[in-house]
Amino acid sequence: MGKNLTKRSEDYSKWYNELVVRADLAENSGVRGCMVIKPYGYAIWEKMQAALDKMFKETGHENAYFPIFIPKSYLSKEASHVEGFAKECAVVTHYRLKNAEDGSGIVVDETAKLEEELIVRPTSETIIWDTFRKWIQSYRDLPLLINQWANVVRWEMRTRLFLRTAEFLWQEGHTAHATEAEAIAEAETILDIYTKFAEAHMAVPVIRGTKTPGERFAGAIETYCIEALMQDGKALQAGTSHFLGQNFAKAFDVKFANKEGSQDYVWATSWGVSTRLMGALVMTHSDDNGLVLPPKLAPIQVVIVPIYKGLDQLEAISEKIEPFLKELRAKGISVKFDNRDTHKPGFKFNEYELKGVPVRLAIGQRDLENNTFEVARRDTLEKQTIPADRVVAHIEGLLEEIQENIYKRAEKYRDAHITEVDSYEDFKRVLEEKGGFISAHWDGSAETEERIKEETKATIRCIPLQPKNEAGTCVVTGKPSQFRVLFAKAY
Amino acid sequence: MGKNLTKRSEDYSKWYNELVVRADLAENSGVRGCMVIKPYGYAIWEKMQAALDKMFKETGHENAYFPIFIPKSYLSKEASHVEGFAKECAVVTHYRLKNAEDGSGIVVDETAKLEEELIVRPTSETIIWDTFRKWIQSYRDLPLLINQWANVVRWEMRTRLFLRTAEFLWQEGHTAHATEAEAIAEAETILDIYTKFAEAHMAVPVIRGTKTPGERFAGAIETYCIEALMQDGKALQAGTSHFLGQNFAKAFDVKFANKEGSQDYVWATSWGVSTRLMGALVMTHSDDNGLVLPPKLAPIQVVIVPIYKGLDQLEAISEKIEPFLKELRAKGISVKFDNRDTHKPGFKFNEYELKGVPVRLAIGQRDLENNTFEVARRDTLEKQTIPADRVVAHIEGLLEEIQENIYKRAEKYRDAHITEVDSYEDFKRVLEEKGGFISAHWDGSAETEERIKEETKATIRCIPLQPKNEAGTCVVTGKPSQFRVLFAKAY
Repeated sequence: MGKNLTKRSEDYSKWYNELVVRADLAENSGVRGCMVIKPYGYAIWEKMQAALDKMFKETGHENAYFPIFIPKSYLSKEASHVEGFAKECAVVTHYRLKNAEDGSGIVVDETAKLEEELIVRPTSETIIWDTFRKWIQSYRDLPLLINQWANVVRWEMRTRLFLRTAEFLWQEGHTAHATEAEAIAEAETILDIYTKFAEAHMAVPVIRGTKTPGERFAGAIETYCIEALMQDGKALQAGTSHFLGQNFAKAFDVKFANKEGSQDYVWATSWGVSTRLMGALVMTHSDDNGLVLPPKLAPIQVVIVPIYKGLDQLEAISEKIEPFLKELRAKGISVKFDNRDTHKPGFKFNEYELKGVPVRLAIGQRDLENNTFEVARRDTLEKQTIPADRVVAHIEGLLEEIQENIYKRAEKYRDAHITEVDSYEDFKRVLEEKGGFISAHWDGSAETEERIKEETKATIRCIPLQPKNEAGTCVVTGKPSQFRVLFAKAY
Repeated sequence: MGKNLTKRSEDYSKWYNELVVRADLAENSGVRGCMVIKPYGYAIWEKMQAALDKMFKETGHENAYFPIFIPKSYLSKEASHVEGFAKECAVVTHYRLKNAEDGSGIVVDETAKLEEELIVRPTSETIIWDTFRKWIQSYRDLPLLINQWANVVRWEMRTRLFLRTAEFLWQEGHTAHATEAEAIAEAETILDIYTKFAEAHMAVPVIRGTKTPGERFAGAIETYCIEALMQDGKALQAGTSHFLGQNFAKAFDVKFANKEGSQDYVWATSWGVSTRLMGALVMTHSDDNGLVLPPKLAPIQVVIVPIYKGLDQLEAISEKIEPFLKELRAKGISVKFDNRDTHKPGFKFNEYELKGVPVRLAIGQRDLENNTFEVARRDTLEKQTIPADRVVAHIEGLLEEIQENIYKRAEKYRDAHITEVDSYEDFKRVLEEKGGFISAHWDGSAETEERIKEETKATIRCIPLQPKNEAGTCVVTGKPSQFRVLFAKAY
């Protein structure tokens, strides 16, 4: 297996598409816009799910499951929500097929037409708030902290594996609270969880902020977000947490009796991350040799490749490494011994580099004689010869070091790509020549935001939390501004 | 909270429907036939998933994810599969909504009609085999052992929570093998896993067998199944594992180069269990007081209810139980201390009985003085006073005992409800008066099977594995038969 990947510098987009397929993460299916997540990719997603699910549960959230279908009329109930979501949707209109009368195959049975069309959920606020009405009567039923792991569908015209697919997997949290302050605190708690997950598990540094009104979730009062920066200088929104005010409670008539006994509308949040994170993971760390995975999310953390001639040597190596396999596994390290005799070591080295396995051990005849292992780390591609009695401790340290190193590398790149500009000319030049985040003054108007987007394709990624107070003037209109916001081209 | 459940003896079906809702397992949604799985019910499902997923992975299976949509034409490719599944399906015909011109809401955009309709998967053989074609070239790619956790939709006219819903959750395994023998061995391995899961985790005894041709999965050569018996004498199919021969490989042209270098079609299996198991769990063990859960699947295994007057007493109790909470949790036992001051102990006792919590501890002023706990077990409703220094060991033993006891109780009931009959008259009488499984000779013909079904509503649940060789004559036609098969009315 030669890697022969397109280089990032040649065509970043092509490099990404090739890598996702070649590293066995995902591929396109026979259904337009829908992907197949392959076992290796899904194993990474399962690790993401496990880490997030644990954090949600530790903060009092419970999982539940709501219907995949949403009656069309539900979507219309919240005025701004319908504008945002009732557009490119998969619409179920019939519930039966039948054999064609001419024997040509199966056709839709026109007599089995639904009275009201059903929409495959693009997000579940409406069906969930229709349910919450039955679950909430009094302040004693609050807060209600629900999460759902599910598939959702948004009909996208241009799709890319993980980044933009018609169907994707995600978690969506939906919570109900007695007070505005509690709901805002919840949205912020979730932003903290997303930040911690992105940085500590994915090793992806993020900028925390809020969206402008134009970029907010349809139906939200405030959208919190984390924004990451990819190696091509484009930003990627990695997670959002919405404070929804009482909009959905009012649309679905969800009231509760407060402690004083009077009726009040419930306060809400919703929040989600999706398989899009897989795209962010790939694009943040990987290189021209293939994936680079953070040890915490790598399905295989350590691979051992034997280098041998004949079955006798393989047997001697197998015997030698048996206690190491046990010891590593006992420490919770996921290790694979690749003893396939159908492929040569060089092929295997390539394959595990492509698949981003953090640590590779090789052991051959000379290592057996010297009681050593050759240890290679994927992030830097460095190799070292390590005495057998120190190899387990070395690997443990190395896994932590790689996790930290790739985070720091990404952080360094990100920090080097936040550029303050004070004129529209500089804005456009930096955007084209350097990319990354552009920190600029903005007059706060939707018109200016829209104009910049049209003229440069850059959007306001976020208004950073706790922005530095610094009076200035909008780079476009010259109107006064109190702080800088972050612009970028984005996925 | 008074329980006031309908009694099983009065109306079993009503008892079930009430219990599922009252115990917070699930409820109907605003979408016809689709349920909401509530947090308490979903927590049980998560425990089922975790146990099954572990067993699948230990036997070499990997998870993956395939599209929810299946192009209509795919369903037609395997002749018998299309007869079984291309009927009551949710059909997506359009991909856009728009605002109605008269301002009355949103309507389907007729210009956004799909060229080929998409079916929401009722099962995924077709889309998966379309993918397997790309994954399999040589014997080195086999076996391919894939599982998917997913939602599926089958349009059902009469639905019941968990037992029969338009959308349900399940796992579906799909495997590909180089030889017929390997594929059959795989189908049998999975039958063993399902059996072990049902009996050791759900505490539900099952009968293992194969289906008659008329009851087989559409497209299967052989369908293995496990059948359980509910307390109303009706059977419930709890899991199926199908040997599919080369049917799907031929339909989707999936060939591989064997070791000799010639091309051969791949051999296949598929297998699944669903949220239907939740229904089996409820109906096997529960009683007129509510749920009875096996400790291995109970979200809360132990609940502690304080009995106190005033905050001083509550504080004394809280202090007393703190070390016990820690010790139980350290042993991996899930324990809840219900110190809500908004509800009385009697209310809480009722609630946890209704929800099937296996062990309840109560502690009041006298227990504090005597250094004891009152320990109640849900399965028998027996109470004992246990000295504090023995309570942790007692609970550990009790959880195991309850798990075993409810299994034995169900097994005893099941064994007492397998009746051998040798005439059609006895068949009909036993079916009506006693219910359960009827073990009878059958001539092996589809006509007789169909006639019995029409006349009595009983179906052949399975041909038991390793049936006793015993010559006899069919209870209906008097034709010769080599062994008995099991009939029952079924869910």
